[in-house]
Amino acid sequence: MDEAAPTPPIPDEIFEEYRDLSIGTVDILPADDLLQRLVMVRQEGRPLRAKLGVDPTAPDIHLGHTVVLRKLAQFQQYGHTAVLIIGDYTAKVGDPSGRSKLRPRLTEEEINVNAATYVEQAAKVLDMERVELVRNSDWLSPLRMDEVLRLTSSTTVARMLERDDFARRYGNNEPISMLEFMYPLLQGYDSVAVRADVELGGTDQTFNLMMARNIMEAYGLPPQSIMTVPLLVGTDGAMKMSKTSGNYIGVNDAPEDMFGKIMSIPDELMIPYWTLLTGAGHQEVGDIASRVEDGSYHPAECKRDLAERIVTLYYDAAAGAAARASFDRIFKERNRPVDMPEAAIPKHCIKDGSVWLPRLMVELKLASSNGEARRLIRQGGVRLEDVVVKNADHEYSPDELVGCVIQVGKRRFLRISTA
Amino acid sequence: MDEAAPTPPIPDEIFEEYRDLSIGTVDILPADDLLQRLVMVRQEGRPLRAKLGVDPTAPDIHLGHTVVLRKLAQFQQYGHTAVLIIGDYTAKVGDPSGRSKLRPRLTEEEINVNAATYVEQAAKVLDMERVELVRNSDWLSPLRMDEVLRLTSSTTVARMLERDDFARRYGNNEPISMLEFMYPLLQGYDSVAVRADVELGGTDQTFNLMMARNIMEAYGLPPQSIMTVPLLVGTDGAMKMSKTSGNYIGVNDAPEDMFGKIMSIPDELMIPYWTLLTGAGHQEVGDIASRVEDGSYHPAECKRDLAERIVTLYYDAAAGAAARASFDRIFKERNRPVDMPEAAIPKHCIKDGSVWLPRLMVELKLASSNGEARRLIRQGGVRLEDVVVKNADHEYSPDELVGCVIQVGKRRFLRISTA
Repeated sequence: MDEAAPTPPIPDEIFEEYRDLSIGTVDILPADDLLQRLVMVRQEGRPLRAKLGVDPTAPDIHLGHTVVLRKLAQFQQYGHTAVLIIGDYTAKVGDPSGRSKLRPRLTEEEINVNAATYVEQAAKVLDMERVELVRNSDWLSPLRMDEVLRLTSSTTVARMLERDDFARRYGNNEPISMLEFMYPLLQGYDSVAVRADVELGGTDQTFNLMMARNIMEAYGLPPQSIMTVPLLVGTDGAMKMSKTSGNYIGVNDAPEDMFGKIMSIPDELMIPYWTLLTGAGHQEVGDIASRVEDGSYHPAECKRDLAERIVTLYYDAAAGAAARASFDRIFKERNRPVDMPEAAIPKHCIKDGSVWLPRLMVELKLASSNGEARRLIRQGGVRLEDVVVKNADHEYSPDELVGCVIQVGKRRFLRISTA
Repeated sequence: MDEAAPTPPIPDEIFEEYRDLSIGTVDILPADDLLQRLVMVRQEGRPLRAKLGVDPTAPDIHLGHTVVLRKLAQFQQYGHTAVLIIGDYTAKVGDPSGRSKLRPRLTEEEINVNAATYVEQAAKVLDMERVELVRNSDWLSPLRMDEVLRLTSSTTVARMLERDDFARRYGNNEPISMLEFMYPLLQGYDSVAVRADVELGGTDQTFNLMMARNIMEAYGLPPQSIMTVPLLVGTDGAMKMSKTSGNYIGVNDAPEDMFGKIMSIPDELMIPYWTLLTGAGHQEVGDIASRVEDGSYHPAECKRDLAERIVTLYYDAAAGAAARASFDRIFKERNRPVDMPEAAIPKHCIKDGSVWLPRLMVELKLASSNGEARRLIRQGGVRLEDVVVKNADHEYSPDELVGCVIQVGKRRFLRISTA
């Protein structure tokens, strides 16, 4: 190539593609690298090889896990090759990323079961026909000492200790097994083995993904671009979605449950969910966001559309429409407003682990005094989850009340939220 | 075994053996462990397995290298098994012990040549017929990733960074390759492979030897005892013996050279040399030391005996006696005293890189004035290395003079030493 030749302008459609691929990401490193690579593979007439390594440690996946899968599916939609690596070998080591302790090593059997379940569920997001599905035991297990030494020579101890969790543990005199230092090397070798052009991962993977670049270079390969996606906030709008926190939406949830859970998210999560969970391109998401912003698209409607879209993705359009209709019918029957105020139980309403309803009603401004509250209850004007409260002196545990709707009279509704 | 039974007393001959094995060592760790082990193997009716790993990186060995070999030979003399591991595999990694940089990895061919030369020379110290001679490539090279991970899980990063040289380099932000962290693990695995009871090494090996204990425990083996020997001070009495420092005695040196070099060591090295280089037991060394101490054994005689003993070890008794006779004859012919004063060239005698002999003679109190010195020279009364000095105004370079004997008249001798 003539060195004096100016770089040709990047075609518009590649910019469009890049914008779609980059929405919802946290980091694309090094900057501009992916864009250049899109241009390059176009010139070479080949697809990008987009790597995603998954640790088959959790058998069930929820929408939080689909963020990165959805991003990988976008690469597929643009004709690129999704290389899905089941980290069956690395799972035996256990990724220490973000962990404060050495993780237990899984057995072969546990790994196989988890891997099968994972693939089955990932198929709800990816076009598995076109996925290059591999297991890293294929190349890691046969590696001999010579290769291990070559691998270890590709980085330094200081570089390894730069990783946040390692640095913190080392600083706190908490043990870091040498085994854990092997993990980023093995994961990096995966990129060598599959000749990755770009690797996707959560933000907790940034270090490992960057380490893979070093290793690819040590093996004489062009280092991959890296792309990280955020952790998904759960339906409570507060914590990262996880099974433990109970704020998750499973990919196997029934359509109506899925729809209902999505309807329960706070409004500020709508656009992130559109961005991270639907595979929508940058133009569609931009359009939705601006219409919600200027008031021409009602949030309640936007959230219904989001829920229907997601149910449609995991089932089909009929299931999406049915879930929506069912949701609307139930709310109509219950005569509840779709958007209702929420409030947590004030701490001082909990006495010896119990809540006295009249006191709670006063605190939540559903009655002006304990006396009025008791009178409203006696008159049958107070409902908990559509059931008339009969005994004003019944003591509730806070757990019983969380998530319940208190209705006072015909029009006053309030949902008890978590603290 | 009945738990209430008292530990039987340790037999005297095992104490004797232990005292012989321990003279000249720096550390035997853990304390008492080796003594207990001597008792144990006696009960089990088997020899100890004493491991020495050598890095075939330097083809020529000198007496400094024999200290640990001589110690291993003592184990042989007590009927134990010397397991000599040629670290042909670890040499490819390069032991970073005490190094401030990653060492260059040797080629297979260099390693083979060095290993052959090493064994040939080690045979001058060890009874090679009874040595278990192995190469660690036999077990390290076939190790697969699974085994490597098991090995890395046996220790922590913090433990590794406790090693002095690693700690210093890490503290100074000097890179430590992850490859270097593998070295102590590989060396430790050697102990697993050969089921070592005790490992010998220089004091710079203490960390690696202790690490091997961790690894043996992780592999369910009783951890080895460790025994370290000191670095040998060279013939100059100042620096560690090394080829680079020019203060070494090669095991291939001719008998007369070997004898002469030993005669040149300062008196204070005599007992260390007896201890570290002759294989003498604790009683013999103790006896020599006390006789020198009380004046009944003249140092010049003691040094001659030492030199003859060492030449005898590397050649035979006849060669030892011949070297001694030759040494004595030369000194007699030269009419030089065996012990003569030494002095360095005072700095101010060197002018523009040259030394004027009369001035030097005055400074060294071999003449009372430049005039007297010139007169002595003119009269043919001054010799340099037995050659009469003819020109009083000849300028010498300091290098020419160092090591030379100046003789003034019949009885005044002085050897020019290094600064």
